[in-house]
Amino acid sequence: MTFALGIDLGGSSVKAVAVTREGKLLSEKNVPFDVNEQLDWARRIQEIVCEMESQQQARAQAIGISAPGLAAMDGRSIARMPGRLQGLEGLDWTEFLCGKAESRKQKAETNLAASPATVPVLNDAHAALLGEAWLGAARGFKHVIMLTLGTGVGGAALVDGKLLRGAVGRGGHFGHASLDPNGVADICGMPGSLETVIGNYNIAERTRGKFATTHALVEAHLAGDRDATAFWLKSVHALACAIASFINIIDPEAVIIGGGIARAGKALFEPLEKFVREVEWKVTPKPVEIIPAELGEVAGAYGAAWNALQMPKLE
Amino acid sequence: MTFALGIDLGGSSVKAVAVTREGKLLSEKNVPFDVNEQLDWARRIQEIVCEMESQQQARAQAIGISAPGLAAMDGRSIARMPGRLQGLEGLDWTEFLCGKAESRKQKAETNLAASPATVPVLNDAHAALLGEAWLGAARGFKHVIMLTLGTGVGGAALVDGKLLRGAVGRGGHFGHASLDPNGVADICGMPGSLETVIGNYNIAERTRGKFATTHALVEAHLAGDRDATAFWLKSVHALACAIASFINIIDPEAVIIGGGIARAGKALFEPLEKFVREVEWKVTPKPVEIIPAELGEVAGAYGAAWNALQMPKLE
Repeated sequence: MTFALGIDLGGSSVKAVAVTREGKLLSEKNVPFDVNEQLDWARRIQEIVCEMESQQQARAQAIGISAPGLAAMDGRSIARMPGRLQGLEGLDWTEFLCGKAESRKQKAETNLAASPATVPVLNDAHAALLGEAWLGAARGFKHVIMLTLGTGVGGAALVDGKLLRGAVGRGGHFGHASLDPNGVADICGMPGSLETVIGNYNIAERTRGKFATTHALVEAHLAGDRDATAFWLKSVHALACAIASFINIIDPEAVIIGGGIARAGKALFEPLEKFVREVEWKVTPKPVEIIPAELGEVAGAYGAAWNALQMPKLE
Repeated sequence: MTFALGIDLGGSSVKAVAVTREGKLLSEKNVPFDVNEQLDWARRIQEIVCEMESQQQARAQAIGISAPGLAAMDGRSIARMPGRLQGLEGLDWTEFLCGKAESRKQKAETNLAASPATVPVLNDAHAALLGEAWLGAARGFKHVIMLTLGTGVGGAALVDGKLLRGAVGRGGHFGHASLDPNGVADICGMPGSLETVIGNYNIAERTRGKFATTHALVEAHLAGDRDATAFWLKSVHALACAIASFINIIDPEAVIIGGGIARAGKALFEPLEKFVREVEWKVTPKPVEIIPAELGEVAGAYGAAWNALQMPKLE
């Protein structure tokens, strides 16, 4: 059976799917790695490819990678990923997983174990949206935005059915849009960005030390804690203003919300919907849909597989 | 000589250019209309077409319109323009300027005065960017943003060389992105939008009644008035944060700044450049360029002409 591997490198684990061209899941893996051991993530990924190919008793027809940072415009590596995952920046995934060009050509000629011609790499938020567009909540939309609310806030957009990559692969970084020019700077240097008002990374500061996680904050809000409700709704209202702003910029049919914080479910989506309707520029009878993501943690792996399946085959 | 007409309907006047396919200006007009007289703008536009065609002693090969509001996705009319220019919403410009389909077909068959097959309509900010991309400051960029700073703040973007229209033609409305979820709502209902922090429409409120126009504010700033400097730099800093945010979303090669407020020149561009560099996410050695628009008030007319020249010819 021909199949593709999609591999998503996260902060502490690697998620992978083996999937057919039609999107049927054949197998799935979630393998933690040691963040303190150099290149442990890279070794794990090699193992995963090997294991999943053995399982299918065949070489993958296509392999795609999703990883944090900005993907190079040629799609062969992550060009920028400062601070974390040392060794990722500039790593050529095609060579790393399939060998040098000459040996790949030789393999193809002798028809032994024909590996994919290229192993394309995507930014993780871009990959998650492509996954949702293929098999999840973003299916059928030509113009769509996705936000992933977690430690930080990831983002991606499809414009006219195509991923908004931009000039250097930075396109769709909605988490780093300012909602307060006098606010505290985020990791990209942006004052008062969306990430600073709803990301989990600064939840303790944002709640004056009262809550250590967004999960705890939402639990307390649901249990009737007034402070928690005030903190939470302030964040959700700011998110709504950001979403309505992005609607005015990208003009999508729908906005997909994923990431750990989206698991709050109704506690997030009900006030969010209400606030967006208050500040949305209503230019059509039908408002822009706000939809929970469907694929959860494997969205990026699916997107990486889909992206790899779009590559031209090795001649 | 074959030529196109580009017509830009403004708030109180109509600007028009007659231009060759290569972008050579043949003639130009700026005709005020009476905002209190119903459909005076429409009559003026008919006159302009007639006069400019007489001047060239030929029918225009293509006619394009630029107007405020959201253009319909089929490009035949302005679909949404509440409040002003009554009669504009839904007006079919092809029929208005060239007659009904049957009579156009007849004309074409008898080869008498072959009018353009369609008169396409663009949103004015979209048209201005297409004009700048054709003949002005945005030439050669595949990914570029334009902001027009005037009474309000208009915006447009090219993504991969194509106008970002979005699902209903709202794409690129950067002026209606929030910089303060608790701020005063703008005309689109967006709290604390970019338009509210730098548009000329609320300059008196923003300066506590001290300045009636941005021009007066900038003059006082340049003359050393400390209050004026504080007000002005606050606005420019907020604009810089907005621009850096849009850079993170669209990832352009350049940001073009036009509109009346851009005539402040150095008084705007010097602090703007400095502030953008402070908050910009630096992912490449070369920063994103901030460039003054070049075509001034006729950018929209040029863009409308260019857009009309892209239409298929009448068979």
